[in-house]
Amino acid sequence: MVKDEMLSEARIIDFFKQQFPALGGIGDDAAVLPLSDTESYVISKDLLLEGVHFRHQYFDDESLAHKALHVNLSDIAVMGAVPRYVLLGLAIPQDNNIDKFLASFAQHCKTCDVTLIGGDTTKSENGLCISVTAIGIAQKSNIKLRSTARVGNIVCIAGKLGYAHVGLQALERSTPGLEAFKEALMRPKARIQEGLWFGAKASVTSMMDISDGLFIDLQRLCQASKVEAKIETEQLPVAQDFLDACKVLELEPLQVQLTGGEDYGLLVTIDSNEYTAVAAEFFNLFGYPLLKVARISTTGVQNTLTLKPFSHFGEL
Amino acid sequence: MVKDEMLSEARIIDFFKQQFPALGGIGDDAAVLPLSDTESYVISKDLLLEGVHFRHQYFDDESLAHKALHVNLSDIAVMGAVPRYVLLGLAIPQDNNIDKFLASFAQHCKTCDVTLIGGDTTKSENGLCISVTAIGIAQKSNIKLRSTARVGNIVCIAGKLGYAHVGLQALERSTPGLEAFKEALMRPKARIQEGLWFGAKASVTSMMDISDGLFIDLQRLCQASKVEAKIETEQLPVAQDFLDACKVLELEPLQVQLTGGEDYGLLVTIDSNEYTAVAAEFFNLFGYPLLKVARISTTGVQNTLTLKPFSHFGEL
Repeated sequence: MVKDEMLSEARIIDFFKQQFPALGGIGDDAAVLPLSDTESYVISKDLLLEGVHFRHQYFDDESLAHKALHVNLSDIAVMGAVPRYVLLGLAIPQDNNIDKFLASFAQHCKTCDVTLIGGDTTKSENGLCISVTAIGIAQKSNIKLRSTARVGNIVCIAGKLGYAHVGLQALERSTPGLEAFKEALMRPKARIQEGLWFGAKASVTSMMDISDGLFIDLQRLCQASKVEAKIETEQLPVAQDFLDACKVLELEPLQVQLTGGEDYGLLVTIDSNEYTAVAAEFFNLFGYPLLKVARISTTGVQNTLTLKPFSHFGEL
Repeated sequence: MVKDEMLSEARIIDFFKQQFPALGGIGDDAAVLPLSDTESYVISKDLLLEGVHFRHQYFDDESLAHKALHVNLSDIAVMGAVPRYVLLGLAIPQDNNIDKFLASFAQHCKTCDVTLIGGDTTKSENGLCISVTAIGIAQKSNIKLRSTARVGNIVCIAGKLGYAHVGLQALERSTPGLEAFKEALMRPKARIQEGLWFGAKASVTSMMDISDGLFIDLQRLCQASKVEAKIETEQLPVAQDFLDACKVLELEPLQVQLTGGEDYGLLVTIDSNEYTAVAAEFFNLFGYPLLKVARISTTGVQNTLTLKPFSHFGEL
């Protein structure tokens, strides 16, 4: 059910895992580098390409700077690390005035307490290309991977499901209104505090962020952990504003929830005995619910729909 | 004499230096990250874009993988560091078979004793985009910067001048032969051992690599060090094969030597009292001469030509 093109990224990751087995971290949201007896650096990189990941028609420079930074910080957050440094690579078309983007990027770095330490600039013949490398520091004992989910764990999401895809559809079709959804696509917020909090919990067994939709990303987590999962589609929480927006755009809500990309919520697996306490504490601390979406099993990734994942921006 | 577009990169670096003064390393070939009392990580990133930095017409996958890795390792080498890790970001066009590139990249990493620890893949609408992040480890005391050249220092180059530009011209014009020059463009070799050796020498006061040509890169070093330099154009060593190739391609040899890009030689400044001994030791160890090209002065960057730098591939 995963579309053919998806195989490419998995295949590339598998190839490099085979070639470089020593570190074994390839395939997680960030790589782990030795720092001290108790701490590690974690490091990730992402490419954002004009025409693939964003269009200037609706992405203003400020939102673009926000997104370029936050999608990278999200990769650091899900490792249970504090983002500390970034490097910014830019390929800039001749006619592009980059000043506002640069000023916004610097400002967002400061807001997130992240220092820009270097980068690279070059010209581009084909639109703006943004390549961010993000570096964080984690307590070794708090680092969460994708490969450590266990049978019986509850799968939860900190964040909303499908909102960014609704926003994308509204922007692509120039549908007025639906601002909260457009905001979800254009200005996803790295859940840094949540990532650190989950990192410190022994009952949280694995973590990643949802960039390509719950269905695909949960499959990735299951493959890394050598387990399977049952998505409880009939129990997925769904809000009225989301249903209304899907109606306006003639989208199937459940499919959007399962396969819409770019939400950047945190996908975590939690020891089932601890789930209730963790969810309550989470709500008290962060003021929004931890959504229960699935259970790790040995019975296969299941759902009640035949899913054809959307072709997400940028997905290979 | 530096063309207008060049100002952009300098302007971007200046902007971020102002915004993030704490680390102060912005503008060097790599950024420095704390590791231990005696060691630092150094980290760099580079973008290579199809149509800007390379064309598939003459860049086979193996050469492209070689170049993508080595131009990044060169940034690590000039910091006086040992390259250790890379992350590979790829934006891949639908019709691109990436397998051979991946296999070559992995092989070159192994040859250089570098471990691939992560990356990112995405689709591209406009040609292959390669973004490498390289990480090395340096003895703190051996790290060389651009900003520490001193008046009276001798400016030397480990490597050849202008060969890559001759190769580029030959490839762009489909000129047969001139293989050594084409090789210089397509497969520049990071001078890792040389960089480490210079790093350990207290008499070497600054170091960077030459990616955009001696004239521009020496200006960058001078600006960073707040000094000036006199290029001794009449004394630049020049080989017969280079003169012959320039004749075939109707290129002005001195201009190519001064402003041809992509040679990736090491530009070092050396205490004038130590220069003779360092150069002799270098030749004994590495089997090729350390070229003396300029002297750091307070009398201005000078040369006997009015130079109009070539528009290098990729230069902003």
